[in-house]
Amino acid sequence: MIKNDRYLRALKGETLDRPPVWMMRQAGRYLPEFMKLKEKYDFFTRCQTPELAAEITVQPIRRYGMDAAILFSDILVVPQAMNIEVEMKNGVGPWLPNPIRSMADVDKVIVPNIEETLGYVMDAIRLTKQELNDAVPLIGFAGSPWTLLCYCIQGQGSKNFDKAKEFCFTQPVAAHTLLQKITDTTILYLKEKVKAGVNAVQIFDSWGGMLSPVDYQEFSWKYIQQIIEALKDDAPVIAFGKGCWFALETMAESNASALGVDWTLTPKMARKLAGPHMTLQGNFDPTRLFSPPTTIKKMVTAMIDDFGKDKYIVNLGHGILPNVGLDNAKAFIDAVKEYKQPES
Amino acid sequence: MIKNDRYLRALKGETLDRPPVWMMRQAGRYLPEFMKLKEKYDFFTRCQTPELAAEITVQPIRRYGMDAAILFSDILVVPQAMNIEVEMKNGVGPWLPNPIRSMADVDKVIVPNIEETLGYVMDAIRLTKQELNDAVPLIGFAGSPWTLLCYCIQGQGSKNFDKAKEFCFTQPVAAHTLLQKITDTTILYLKEKVKAGVNAVQIFDSWGGMLSPVDYQEFSWKYIQQIIEALKDDAPVIAFGKGCWFALETMAESNASALGVDWTLTPKMARKLAGPHMTLQGNFDPTRLFSPPTTIKKMVTAMIDDFGKDKYIVNLGHGILPNVGLDNAKAFIDAVKEYKQPES
Repeated sequence: MIKNDRYLRALKGETLDRPPVWMMRQAGRYLPEFMKLKEKYDFFTRCQTPELAAEITVQPIRRYGMDAAILFSDILVVPQAMNIEVEMKNGVGPWLPNPIRSMADVDKVIVPNIEETLGYVMDAIRLTKQELNDAVPLIGFAGSPWTLLCYCIQGQGSKNFDKAKEFCFTQPVAAHTLLQKITDTTILYLKEKVKAGVNAVQIFDSWGGMLSPVDYQEFSWKYIQQIIEALKDDAPVIAFGKGCWFALETMAESNASALGVDWTLTPKMARKLAGPHMTLQGNFDPTRLFSPPTTIKKMVTAMIDDFGKDKYIVNLGHGILPNVGLDNAKAFIDAVKEYKQPES
Repeated sequence: MIKNDRYLRALKGETLDRPPVWMMRQAGRYLPEFMKLKEKYDFFTRCQTPELAAEITVQPIRRYGMDAAILFSDILVVPQAMNIEVEMKNGVGPWLPNPIRSMADVDKVIVPNIEETLGYVMDAIRLTKQELNDAVPLIGFAGSPWTLLCYCIQGQGSKNFDKAKEFCFTQPVAAHTLLQKITDTTILYLKEKVKAGVNAVQIFDSWGGMLSPVDYQEFSWKYIQQIIEALKDDAPVIAFGKGCWFALETMAESNASALGVDWTLTPKMARKLAGPHMTLQGNFDPTRLFSPPTTIKKMVTAMIDDFGKDKYIVNLGHGILPNVGLDNAKAFIDAVKEYKQPES
């Protein structure tokens, strides 16, 4: 049904003419058409108005023709639905006026009715699917329970999420109770998203790399695995853990359809750790999009050669940065479309 | 001459009764005696007044009896000496009012006369050596050229040092010119430190982990290697690269006497990547010092078992955090002193 299904076929590990390509945060601030909407509507208005979310989702596809769209939204709509106040402050980013600091705070957190609290996301999905008209697949996403806990406890972004980690290490029962509530909500949320029409779901574990390998298993991966197990029969699940190279071997034993990797490991090392059967996604350094377009094209071609064209989805190693030039983003996408396998 | 020379012997790979222990940022804000001086004297006054720097250096040794002292100073005194204005802003951290953004800016950067610009550091070393009275060795340090470039270009701390990386990727000639000037200055600076009395030098590459493995070799490791080669006959050199696990194999081929590792890799993985002959230093997660003291002791014992008691220096994987309890820091140090090798 999907006309360009390279992305879905790569998730199944099929042999393709070239790997599919999309960019994390592709619906974002490097696009002038996005900036126009950003100037008119505040952050949560953009998330919560299906027409705006759908338009923003489709903008990069219209301009560059990536092989997949990803619904414009934010990982923090989930804690918001769970009775945790979340604001987006200019120049600060996420801001939670009442961060969770005790078991009593955790007790106030609810596992919500998804349709009542996040129905606007499902409306945005249905509208986006109409606009995409099956040209490319639509990806839905959620933050990992650990990454959401980081914001819920810390109350804002942080270079080390010290308060979040202190909470886990001194109040582990409260931490696990919160993680389980987030996990339960995320499973319900992602299942609704699939019902509304997304073709795959990606879990973003942006802060998993803050944990030691042992703590990562206990506070992050355990919960991501629950999500993968609950969703695997509904849609392909992609797990992306920034800085989580140390867990790749374990992650590769899961039922995830693909694993995202950042740019701190070579394609060769990623493949070695994840094994030959897992589809990998990544891992261009987003700041390398500041290089001249000709350099970008060479680097992307070399990256595909190194990962191999199959069982591979071309992406950045983290979200695209706001001040990347339009021609630079285009060079990234075009290099994939123009890819020819080296003669062996 | 040094009474407790465990640290120096570990750097030589000798067999010891137990590994030596110290903590990155051990002369710091978790100590009430430090906070008293911090309230009275601003940051650069503390760095530039030999009596204050020496007193702060010795404070943690007096309280806990670590196996090595590290001179209280800051990596940013080097760019300061190179004609780059550096301030320390409360609540912001390092602040450079005129960040470097062009080749013209780089041209204004000088390789200074060390005695004229950083003589106060040498005075602090001589005073500290007197106060230590050869009880334990004294470590001197410098930031890696890449890490110093990050601050010089970005102008302040950052979660991704996007401006610094953009500078390197769009103006590589200017970037390498600056890196070489920093390297030349650092070599002169560390040689003077050794002459003044430090027994070993550590290079802190705090932001090396922001780079891809390929870019790390080009913009960071190449210059650290120059420093190691220039210093290796003067004093043992320890290279610590936060997030630089991906380069450990290459780093282990150098003439460094030890490599520091952070907590995102298991001791087993660190040993596997660095090989059996290199002394390793690390890698307790600093936020794990928020755990109860009994938990800390168990974790430290397990960490020593995993690294092995020889060719190993117990440390944190990054600097100790300001709000760690005194008993928690004590548990970390005591666990090493009480270490008994498991019966095989």
